[in-house]
Amino acid sequence: MCQLLGMNANTPTDVMFSFTGLATRADEHKDGFGIAFFEDKGLRHFIDDRSARESPVADLVRRYPIRSDNVIAHIRKATQGRIALENTHPFVRELWGRYWVFAHNGNLEGFAPRLHGAFRPVGDTDSERAFCWLMQELAKAHAGVPGIDELSCTLRELLPQLARHGSFNLLLSNGQALWAHATTKLWSLQRQHPFGAATLADADLSVDFAALTSPTDRVAIVATEPLTTGEAWSPFAPGELRVFVHGARRLPAAA
Amino acid sequence: MCQLLGMNANTPTDVMFSFTGLATRADEHKDGFGIAFFEDKGLRHFIDDRSARESPVADLVRRYPIRSDNVIAHIRKATQGRIALENTHPFVRELWGRYWVFAHNGNLEGFAPRLHGAFRPVGDTDSERAFCWLMQELAKAHAGVPGIDELSCTLRELLPQLARHGSFNLLLSNGQALWAHATTKLWSLQRQHPFGAATLADADLSVDFAALTSPTDRVAIVATEPLTTGEAWSPFAPGELRVFVHGARRLPAAA
Repeated sequence: MCQLLGMNANTPTDVMFSFTGLATRADEHKDGFGIAFFEDKGLRHFIDDRSARESPVADLVRRYPIRSDNVIAHIRKATQGRIALENTHPFVRELWGRYWVFAHNGNLEGFAPRLHGAFRPVGDTDSERAFCWLMQELAKAHAGVPGIDELSCTLRELLPQLARHGSFNLLLSNGQALWAHATTKLWSLQRQHPFGAATLADADLSVDFAALTSPTDRVAIVATEPLTTGEAWSPFAPGELRVFVHGARRLPAAA
Repeated sequence: MCQLLGMNANTPTDVMFSFTGLATRADEHKDGFGIAFFEDKGLRHFIDDRSARESPVADLVRRYPIRSDNVIAHIRKATQGRIALENTHPFVRELWGRYWVFAHNGNLEGFAPRLHGAFRPVGDTDSERAFCWLMQELAKAHAGVPGIDELSCTLRELLPQLARHGSFNLLLSNGQALWAHATTKLWSLQRQHPFGAATLADADLSVDFAALTSPTDRVAIVATEPLTTGEAWSPFAPGELRVFVHGARRLPAAA
């Protein structure tokens, strides 16, 4: 199973600690890794078809404190598609003058949507096909860029159509919000004042966030499995979509 | 003036030597840099809004031998648009299931094309607007992905429409070919058997390509100014488009 990591914060925050935890799990996930950092509307996108344990690109990400308000990372274990750069998550497209970043964990069997719009896969994974279909349907549903709640509403209609083809754990961001959808396995965590210390579940590393943060900082983390011990990770229900804005979970407006 | 660097090769080749030469010129070009490497259809895209002289990302590019058949690099001196990640070249979009990479040196005054298609700028530079317009017009001109000669033909019609707005030195690649267009300043060079030695014009560094290549290797380099001494750089004529495929210049078919 691939590993997903998402971060949404109200102030630009680095993810070196969480990424180190994620990369530690790369033992069984040798088929490439990728990470995308939004800085406002701008995007840094690092991918490598080498394992996150040995990639010089992953090493840069672990050592260079890139501060971002929305991050999506993915460590790949190939289920569909060759091990190749063009099959490495996260994928990026532009829509409505914003970059969109997408990473998927799962497997969509026999998923061959009709792609008649402006979004075509470059590689040959089910995941990139799903992303292109999602972008196409979002573009059809809204003439211009909608608000976050409107987008969440449209995603609540579209995502079950993908999820019925198989397991579909998803991270999606346009730099304004982080959308996370689970069918089988995803956890989220909110860090805010008073900050405590956390220890990585898989590596011998601890961080005292109180020393690194200010009281108004707020960060949400989403991951395939809890990355730390001693923090209140919350599991997603099957089919659940969570939306994170400014480091906090945004609840759907009452119908 | 920004600095452009393009590379097209018949065998995956690293550009550490040329990029070192380019980065040496970054003294007066502190407004960010970017480099994109195709590996077949896949793409690595590194950008930073810090100078190429001090950016850890540039340092990675100098030290990690990424082998690619098509490379586009850009060192920015901002003329239009803030210094920000979203204004950093090269820009990337997907069309016909291929990534397209674009970098521009020059300044298009009052260029505000009608963008009604699927390509919108994320940042606020004239360059990204020109790229979006170019992608839109290419998409209109061909229903599916055309061959390289057909694309070159369409570009020969489109590029003068951009160039009449100002200086427009351009590098464009889809991973199959490198298109280079100059209005004011661009040079190209072909390296092939028998390979000799070259010395960077701006840095104290020499390379003996004979020791690093095999006799069938062929590499074309395009740059704003000759990067080396002792090699036969050829200047572009104003308005000239050169197309490079498999490390060699491809001449237009006779009309």
